[in-house]
Amino acid sequence: MSQDKKLNTLVIGSGGVATITALSLDKRNKSDVSMIVRSDYSKAVTDGYTIDSCDYGKIEGWKPTKIYKTVDESVSNGEFYDYVLVTTKNIPDGPTPVAKILEPVVQATFKSWSNFSEEEKKNKVITIIMIQNGIDIETEVYELLKADHLVADGVHGPKVVVLSGVQMIGSTRTAPATILQKGQDYLILGAFDQSDELAKSKVLEFKDIYLNEGHNVVEIDDKVRWSRWRKLIYNATINPLTAIVCLDFTRTLLFSGPNEATEFEILRPAMKEILAIAKAEGHIIDESVMDLMIDGDRTMIYKPSMMVDTERDQLMEIEVILGNPIRTAKKLNVPTPYLSMLYNIAHIIQMRNKEKMGLVTLDESTATLK
Amino acid sequence: MSQDKKLNTLVIGSGGVATITALSLDKRNKSDVSMIVRSDYSKAVTDGYTIDSCDYGKIEGWKPTKIYKTVDESVSNGEFYDYVLVTTKNIPDGPTPVAKILEPVVQATFKSWSNFSEEEKKNKVITIIMIQNGIDIETEVYELLKADHLVADGVHGPKVVVLSGVQMIGSTRTAPATILQKGQDYLILGAFDQSDELAKSKVLEFKDIYLNEGHNVVEIDDKVRWSRWRKLIYNATINPLTAIVCLDFTRTLLFSGPNEATEFEILRPAMKEILAIAKAEGHIIDESVMDLMIDGDRTMIYKPSMMVDTERDQLMEIEVILGNPIRTAKKLNVPTPYLSMLYNIAHIIQMRNKEKMGLVTLDESTATLK
Repeated sequence: MSQDKKLNTLVIGSGGVATITALSLDKRNKSDVSMIVRSDYSKAVTDGYTIDSCDYGKIEGWKPTKIYKTVDESVSNGEFYDYVLVTTKNIPDGPTPVAKILEPVVQATFKSWSNFSEEEKKNKVITIIMIQNGIDIETEVYELLKADHLVADGVHGPKVVVLSGVQMIGSTRTAPATILQKGQDYLILGAFDQSDELAKSKVLEFKDIYLNEGHNVVEIDDKVRWSRWRKLIYNATINPLTAIVCLDFTRTLLFSGPNEATEFEILRPAMKEILAIAKAEGHIIDESVMDLMIDGDRTMIYKPSMMVDTERDQLMEIEVILGNPIRTAKKLNVPTPYLSMLYNIAHIIQMRNKEKMGLVTLDESTATLK
Repeated sequence: MSQDKKLNTLVIGSGGVATITALSLDKRNKSDVSMIVRSDYSKAVTDGYTIDSCDYGKIEGWKPTKIYKTVDESVSNGEFYDYVLVTTKNIPDGPTPVAKILEPVVQATFKSWSNFSEEEKKNKVITIIMIQNGIDIETEVYELLKADHLVADGVHGPKVVVLSGVQMIGSTRTAPATILQKGQDYLILGAFDQSDELAKSKVLEFKDIYLNEGHNVVEIDDKVRWSRWRKLIYNATINPLTAIVCLDFTRTLLFSGPNEATEFEILRPAMKEILAIAKAEGHIIDESVMDLMIDGDRTMIYKPSMMVDTERDQLMEIEVILGNPIRTAKKLNVPTPYLSMLYNIAHIIQMRNKEKMGLVTLDESTATLK
C-alpha cells in the first residue's frame, strides 16, 4: 500500500510498551508519530530516549515526531490522527476509563471536521487500536462514538473503526526516558467487527505502517473474540489469584493446599468456566490450552500483571478480565462459581486500593462510603 | 467443693488473655498459679504486672505464684499441675503445635509419678483445658497422651482429662507486663467427651477455682461440639475472608462486588456449608445465627484474629478453623466449595508468611521448596 502523504499516528500509553510501539512506527517511516509522555516529558523532549531493544538494538536520543504532555494538548491544534493506539491499562471502574482518555481526541476531531474539504473528508477515517487485555472492551468506545457521532445539523463526522490489538512484548522503563526491551514485539491485530470491511482494510493498512520485517511481528487475527477468550484462560484465573495472594505464579503453585489444590481446586475449575462461557458463545477452545498456560510458567518465578498492580497498590483490570466474562456467563446461563469467587475477592482488594488512592473514603462513624 | 490443700495450676499463653486468666485463678485463691512468660519475663519478675481490668479494677505490681520462662522450666523440679490451661493459638502446621507445647508437661509428670505415694496417686488427675478456637483440636492431645500413657513396666501414669474452653475476653498487652482488659472474661467450659464423668466433675471443680462471682463468668457447656460448630460459622468464614483481603470486617462488606457479593456470594454460602457439616454430624444450628454474626459486627470496624495475624505476617489458625471442618465434610460427603476456596487461598497466604518467617525456603533455581 503506498501513501502520497505520511499518515498521522498517536500513541497513548506510558513506559516500555508505548515507547517501543512508537519506535516501530517511526522506524517504518510511513507515519508521523506523536506520543503522550507524562512523567518523563522534560527528559524525553531534551535528550530523547535511551533504548536497548532486542528488536532494534541500542539507540541513543531517539524522539518520535512529536511529544505531548497530555491527550488534550495533542489535539489542541486541530490535529487529525489516522491511527490512535491505546496501550494503557483498561480500568472502566478507575478514574480514567478508556472512553474518557479518548474523549478529547474524538471531540477535537469532530470539531475540526469542517476544516477539511469534501474530497479530504471522503478518505478520512479514524482508526482506534485498543492494545489491551480483556473482553468486550470495545463496547465503551462504541458508546462514546455513538454519542459524538453527529457534528451538528445532521452532518456526520469522520468514519471511525475500532481494532483489537493483543501485544506480547517484554519492555520496561528502567529510568526516566530509558527503555529496556527484552522480548520481541509480537502484535496480534484484528477487527472487533469481522463484518466491517473498512475495519478489515485498516488492519492491512496498519500492518503495512507498523511491520518492520525481521524486527517485530504482526499477526492478523480474523477471530478476535476467540483469541480474547483464549487469553482469558490465563488472565481471568492465574492473574487474579496471584494478585489476591500477592505472590509470583511459582510460589502460588508451590504454596498450595493439600492435593495440589491451587492447580486442581482453583485454577483448572476457573479455566474450565472460561472455556464453557466461550463455548456457549460458539467459540471452541481446546482444553489442552490449560496445560500450556499452567506448565508454561510453572517454574518461571513470574509475576503476572494484576499481581504487580496490587503489589504497587495500583488498580487492576478486574472488570474487563473478570467482570465482563461473568456478565456474559449470566446472560448465557453458564455457572461461574470459581470465577465469581476470584472476582468478588479481587473486587474487595480493588476497593482497598481505591481507598489508599483516595478514590473512595469510608466514614467510620456511620460506616458508609463516600 | 472444698480443698484441704491448694491445687496447682499452670497457664500457658502470652499477653492479655493469659494474664487475666491467671489473675482470675489467683483472685479466687484456691490454686497456686504458675505462668509462662517469655518476652516480659524480667519486667514481670522484677515489678509485676500493671493491670487495668474491667473485671478487677486497677492493679499495680501483681504477680502470680510463680513465673517461668519456658514450659520446660515449669516442670524441671517435678511439679505436678492439676490444671494446665492452654491459651495459645492452635497452629498444628506451625513450629509449635499444641502437642509439642504440652509434651514437656506430660513427660515430666509421668517421670515424677513414682515420687507420689499410692494414696496420692489415686486422686491425681491432670486436667488440660484447651481455651482455643476451631474443632477437633483435642485429637492431637489424645494422640500425645496415648503415646506417653505408660510410664514403664505396664505401670500407668496419672489420669488425664481434656476440657474445652471458649473464652470471650477483650484483653490486650499494651506495653511490657502491662495489660488493658476492656471486655469481661466470659469462659464457656465443657468436657470434649460428654460420656467421661471424671471430665465432667473436673468442669465443676475448675469452675469452683476460677469463678469470681460478680467479676468474671463461667458458663458450663454440655454440648461442646455444637458450640464449636456454632463459633465456626463466624470463624471459618468472616475470619479467613478478612485475612485474605487484609481488611476489617466493615470494609470487607462495604468494598463488596455487585449485589452485596461479599455477604451473599461468599460469606452466607460458606456459613451454610458449616451448618450443613454440623447437621450431617447431628448438630442442628439455626440459620438465624448467620444474621446475628454478620449484623453484629457490620459497623464495628473490627479486625478478626486471622486478619490481625496476617497483617502482622504471623501464622493463622487455618487448620483447626478450616482444614478440620473440610476434612469432616469430606468424610460425610458434604460439599464445601466455598470453604475450600477460602481454605485453599488462605493456605497459600499461610505459606507466604511461613517463607517470611524462614519456616520454608524456595530454591528459585529449581523451583522447589526446602
